[in-house]
Amino acid sequence: MASQVRALVFDAYGTLFDPFAVRTRAEELFPGNGTALSQLWRAKQLEYSWLRTLMGRYENFWKITEDALVFSCHTLKLSCNEHQRKQLMQVYLTLPAFPEVKSALEKLSPMPLSILSNGTLEMLTAVVAASGMAHFFQHIFSVDSLRIYKPRPEVYQHAATSLGIPKESIGFVSSNYWDIAGATMFGFQTYWLNRNSSIPDELGVTPSVVLGNLAELPRTLA
Amino acid sequence: MASQVRALVFDAYGTLFDPFAVRTRAEELFPGNGTALSQLWRAKQLEYSWLRTLMGRYENFWKITEDALVFSCHTLKLSCNEHQRKQLMQVYLTLPAFPEVKSALEKLSPMPLSILSNGTLEMLTAVVAASGMAHFFQHIFSVDSLRIYKPRPEVYQHAATSLGIPKESIGFVSSNYWDIAGATMFGFQTYWLNRNSSIPDELGVTPSVVLGNLAELPRTLA
Repeated sequence: MASQVRALVFDAYGTLFDPFAVRTRAEELFPGNGTALSQLWRAKQLEYSWLRTLMGRYENFWKITEDALVFSCHTLKLSCNEHQRKQLMQVYLTLPAFPEVKSALEKLSPMPLSILSNGTLEMLTAVVAASGMAHFFQHIFSVDSLRIYKPRPEVYQHAATSLGIPKESIGFVSSNYWDIAGATMFGFQTYWLNRNSSIPDELGVTPSVVLGNLAELPRTLA
Repeated sequence: MASQVRALVFDAYGTLFDPFAVRTRAEELFPGNGTALSQLWRAKQLEYSWLRTLMGRYENFWKITEDALVFSCHTLKLSCNEHQRKQLMQVYLTLPAFPEVKSALEKLSPMPLSILSNGTLEMLTAVVAASGMAHFFQHIFSVDSLRIYKPRPEVYQHAATSLGIPKESIGFVSSNYWDIAGATMFGFQTYWLNRNSSIPDELGVTPSVVLGNLAELPRTLA
């Protein structure tokens, strides 16, 4: 039988914060290309985080996010000047929370809540403050202090060690299946937030629980 | 000034062997979906190799290639039975060489030539034999003996150590930019085979030389 969850750790981008605003701004700047640009940008942002970790050549998430944007614009033949690039990067600092997030966090907040993200502390502090959610979180953990990215097990270990709670009593919530895979393999109890009815990756693991949105989490833990 | 290249190491899939046959077979089995299936399959195959290495949960390339195929069919809502899956997997064992490869290898073959690939030794031996190119290669190095995938530096180190040649005197040839990035950071002299005029990734490295096809390599080294 599973241990009782004593603390919750949340991924940030796509889990608490809705990246849809990226597509909207991309579409404003490059009409007809918003979807393609935002999708390629996100795919390359993740790819660069994995490749740089494998190669042992860390750069922080702000830098690789900008690198991924530059590559994506070149590939899509979009002439993106410095001002436009800054406008797109700024969106990351002000992404709104998904609609159900605040009320779910209120119900969950008797428990210690934290964020564990690839983002830098500056990026995370900004986006949390912009959405008025700073009071919910006991800790904001960034991979930046470790200079490696998810899903390396040391990243999940860092959160567990800092919280001082056994990993099997920590619930980890992410909409990214590969992140859930890493957290499950590490030993967290895992809650896959599958808002878009995606197909789970074939990585040899199964999350503890699958949720359609964050509003389902309080009653799942009750 | 760059050292003289004393040995050449080639990536296999997409570099020596043309994966176009995968799309052809996919199109035969799932008309109208060949391009989408082959592209998603390849993207997921690489993603799984990176993620499993980051998570420390190695499975060999045959297994993750099949896993990636299963995921891709589910995602594209293609009902792929076991027979069809086997047919698609078999294509990997008989991929043809790109048209210019044999004549280029003949010109290069006074130098020791090797393969360094994510594929298993069984997969690589089969595809090399099927194209009648076994006699060109002194070594076929598979990451399978190390249980980690490219672009981890240990993979490139393995080839250098086995060859007993200083890394700066080894020329590494790949059409995959991320592979070239890893090999460049490791310290090989690198030849990026950019057959499709792709945009280089923003990973903070530059290959030693960019080639349009393999026929250009003998005169580049002359």
